[in-house]
Amino acid sequence: MGDSDPTIQTADEGAQRLLSHADTVRLEALSDGVIAVAITLLVLDLRVPELEPDQPLWNALTVNWPSYAAYVTSFLVIGILWINHHSLFRQIRYATRGLMLANLTFLMLVVAIPFVTSLVSKYLLEGNWNSKVAMATYDGLALAIALSITFLWAYVLRRPALLEPTVDVAAARKAFPQFSIGIAVYTVLIVLAFINPVIALAGTFGVALYYCFEHLPSGRSKPNEPDGKVL
Amino acid sequence: MGDSDPTIQTADEGAQRLLSHADTVRLEALSDGVIAVAITLLVLDLRVPELEPDQPLWNALTVNWPSYAAYVTSFLVIGILWINHHSLFRQIRYATRGLMLANLTFLMLVVAIPFVTSLVSKYLLEGNWNSKVAMATYDGLALAIALSITFLWAYVLRRPALLEPTVDVAAARKAFPQFSIGIAVYTVLIVLAFINPVIALAGTFGVALYYCFEHLPSGRSKPNEPDGKVL
Amino acid sequence: MGDSDPTIQTADEGAQRLLSHADTVRLEALSDGVIAVAITLLVLDLRVPELEPDQPLWNALTVNWPSYAAYVTSFLVIGILWINHHSLFRQIRYATRGLMLANLTFLMLVVAIPFVTSLVSKYLLEGNWNSKVAMATYDGLALAIALSITFLWAYVLRRPALLEPTVDVAAARKAFPQFSIGIAVYTVLIVLAFINPVIALAGTFGVALYYCFEHLPSGRSKPNEPDGKVL
Amino acid sequence: MGDSDPTIQTADEGAQRLLSHADTVRLEALSDGVIAVAITLLVLDLRVPELEPDQPLWNALTVNWPSYAAYVTSFLVIGILWINHHSLFRQIRYATRGLMLANLTFLMLVVAIPFVTSLVSKYLLEGNWNSKVAMATYDGLALAIALSITFLWAYVLRRPALLEPTVDVAAARKAFPQFSIGIAVYTVLIVLAFINPVIALAGTFGVALYYCFEHLPSGRSKPNEPDGKVL
Repeated sequence: MGDSDPTIQTADEGAQRLLSHADTVRLEALSDGVIAVAITLLVLDLRVPELEPDQPLWNALTVNWPSYAAYVTSFLVIGILWINHHSLFRQIRYATRGLMLANLTFLMLVVAIPFVTSLVSKYLLEGNWNSKVAMATYDGLALAIALSITFLWAYVLRRPALLEPTVDVAAARKAFPQFSIGIAVYTVLIVLAFINPVIALAGTFGVALYYCFEHLPSGRSKPNEPDGKVL
Repeated sequence: MGDSDPTIQTADEGAQRLLSHADTVRLEALSDGVIAVAITLLVLDLRVPELEPDQPLWNALTVNWPSYAAYVTSFLVIGILWINHHSLFRQIRYATRGLMLANLTFLMLVVAIPFVTSLVSKYLLEGNWNSKVAMATYDGLALAIALSITFLWAYVLRRPALLEPTVDVAAARKAFPQFSIGIAVYTVLIVLAFINPVIALAGTFGVALYYCFEHLPSGRSKPNEPDGKVL
Repeated sequence: MGDSDPTIQTADEGAQRLLSHADTVRLEALSDGVIAVAITLLVLDLRVPELEPDQPLWNALTVNWPSYAAYVTSFLVIGILWINHHSLFRQIRYATRGLMLANLTFLMLVVAIPFVTSLVSKYLLEGNWNSKVAMATYDGLALAIALSITFLWAYVLRRPALLEPTVDVAAARKAFPQFSIGIAVYTVLIVLAFINPVIALAGTFGVALYYCFEHLPSGRSKPNEPDGKVL
Repeated sequence: MGDSDPTIQTADEGAQRLLSHADTVRLEALSDGVIAVAITLLVLDLRVPELEPDQPLWNALTVNWPSYAAYVTSFLVIGILWINHHSLFRQIRYATRGLMLANLTFLMLVVAIPFVTSLVSKYLLEGNWNSKVAMATYDGLALAIALSITFLWAYVLRRPALLEPTVDVAAARKAFPQFSIGIAVYTVLIVLAFINPVIALAGTFGVALYYCFEHLPSGRSKPNEPDGKVL
């Protein structure tokens, strides 16, 4: 719909078909829908407690705190992932089937977050290897998501014709190594999960909160600069 | 996408990055998606009854009335929250990471409504402290949501550059204290829950119905006035 | 966003605020989201069977046919409701808080369809009063939905200023009594549910299939006429 | 909304009403919403394991591999279906009630995928007829979906007035037999399910992966050709 320069080609795409800009808009809309549903399904991990005899409800609600901690953490994690996914896709103008597959892999991992959240809710306080395995699985999924988004961005940077013309490709490539920070952080959290899973959950929450204010590197020009595109 | 004045800046934003108008549109779309899913997940609190021996189905359906009462109340509550969230966001043109975090907190609380609805469905008729705790938790969440939306609006009013140019900031600030009414009302309902949880549920429904016709204060001009923007 | 005639007023709206066209677009988007989620949640009524000893899976899947019949029927019912809701809203240009409340009531009933579907899946074959009560509850909900959409349309027809200027109000009012057909049909199906619930389910499916080709009356001009607006 | 040629008619449509282009946009939006929810509900098939006495969590997670395999396969299958559905609908400009019913049938089958995924997760490793029946049911649903999308496209190709004017109808009709490949493939997979269900699952995954790069035939012009519309 109104692609001004549809004949754009990349040498390294070879015979692979390019998808139009309308398709990346659609791709992003589907991603938004999937992420919105996944974040909302987290509520299913908040279960109404079955009381034991003579157990008051307030007590059952209170001992259930790992559920709430896991819920808040996962909500923030998915929220940040949405923001960052959106930041990257705003810089992408054309798509390929390969990019769609990379994006589908990313979504497949994000959608699994309610599952690992449920795992942590149930096993965090067991105080044995199961707590550690549950929390390590959680941060393992977070690591896999970080890897998938790093791969997706590397894929696009190697095919600069897919990017919006406003993107400064050289700057984006220079900023790319910053992606490895997220990968390193989640690797550390996996190790921490085997030492103290409760602290690893707190750390995961802290990392998400930090990323809420620090976002992924990009080739976009700085805000408030005369070119005008603010991010 | 056609931001006419992207170089807008606020003094008190300091180094914080401004997000473009396209981002607030997107933010609102994600919020709409999350709210639509959350309101629909309420149906999961309507459970098909397991019959006891010789219990007829119509009887099991009838004694289950707290489920339906909680369902209707929560549906109305989320519906009103959607309308009010939407009214506020129509007045916001630019976003910051802080605003996104405030909005994420709001959504996180709204998504938990099906959980407290389920709590009330199950424990409302126990007739002991558990009924009171369940209903107080429900209204406690409602209070937290009222606080989060009040905070969000206060955040924006302190950064008027984020608002649409049509908004009368002075009028909006003058109307701001009206937000405290919602906070007071839910505080009263929490107290009422400890006196009579069934009446507290009826009161919560009544408040939602009242808000359906009375909406949150804003700085928008009055409807039918010559400037034309009707709300 | 580009409301060309925002000062439009209706005498009988009195002091009630009119919502702009942008709001009806948004209202419809929320309705679409809710309906899309509700129709998808129907899959939760298709449960993986727990096998009894020596029971083969194909047998367990086969005896579960009421689930599939209820699933297909409800999918079609919600699909038709979406189409008709959409047909009506395309003719509405402005909204009021009253219209939003009427629409919220409609959605609240539609979202309950997966619940009554589950009820029918479980009790249809019990062969006693419970089968009849389950099926009558299903058609009772369908009747309530028909009433709510009739009320919504009556509300709008009494306030013609809310309609798109292309709508022929006189024709729409003349066609209005056709809404009573749906109400009569579902009343008959409720009675039929008490005679033979399986036939009532088949009848409900048949009615939905019929409505798939015959849609709600409206004041839109006929298709292929020179004014051009096809529906 | 801006239909440039609304008086278009097809001889074989007879008295059937044509729906405007705005309706196909809406139809596609509803389809996108339903598919996004369906793909996300797959996470409900990933269940937190209940441990048997002395069973470590990592063991319970590991033996649960059919769940993950079925999850990944279904995610890819629904993702591909979304892409192909979208490719077809981009070529459709007008809709009829018949097309809406065909699309509703397609969606009804897609929404059932989480159910058969759950079936495979639970019964794949039983190692008896139940494994075979579960996997054959899965591929049977995939076959039904392939048939429904083939029917939908045949329906449109017989009514070329429904297509976008840019579509080369002759080329699209010539490419139509390629749809039979998908039908043949899923028929083979059903047979394979009765021989070795695990290999049938792997085959289903492989087919989805293959389709990720090879898409459905269409009448669109080739990419990179001067007419510019790239797909």
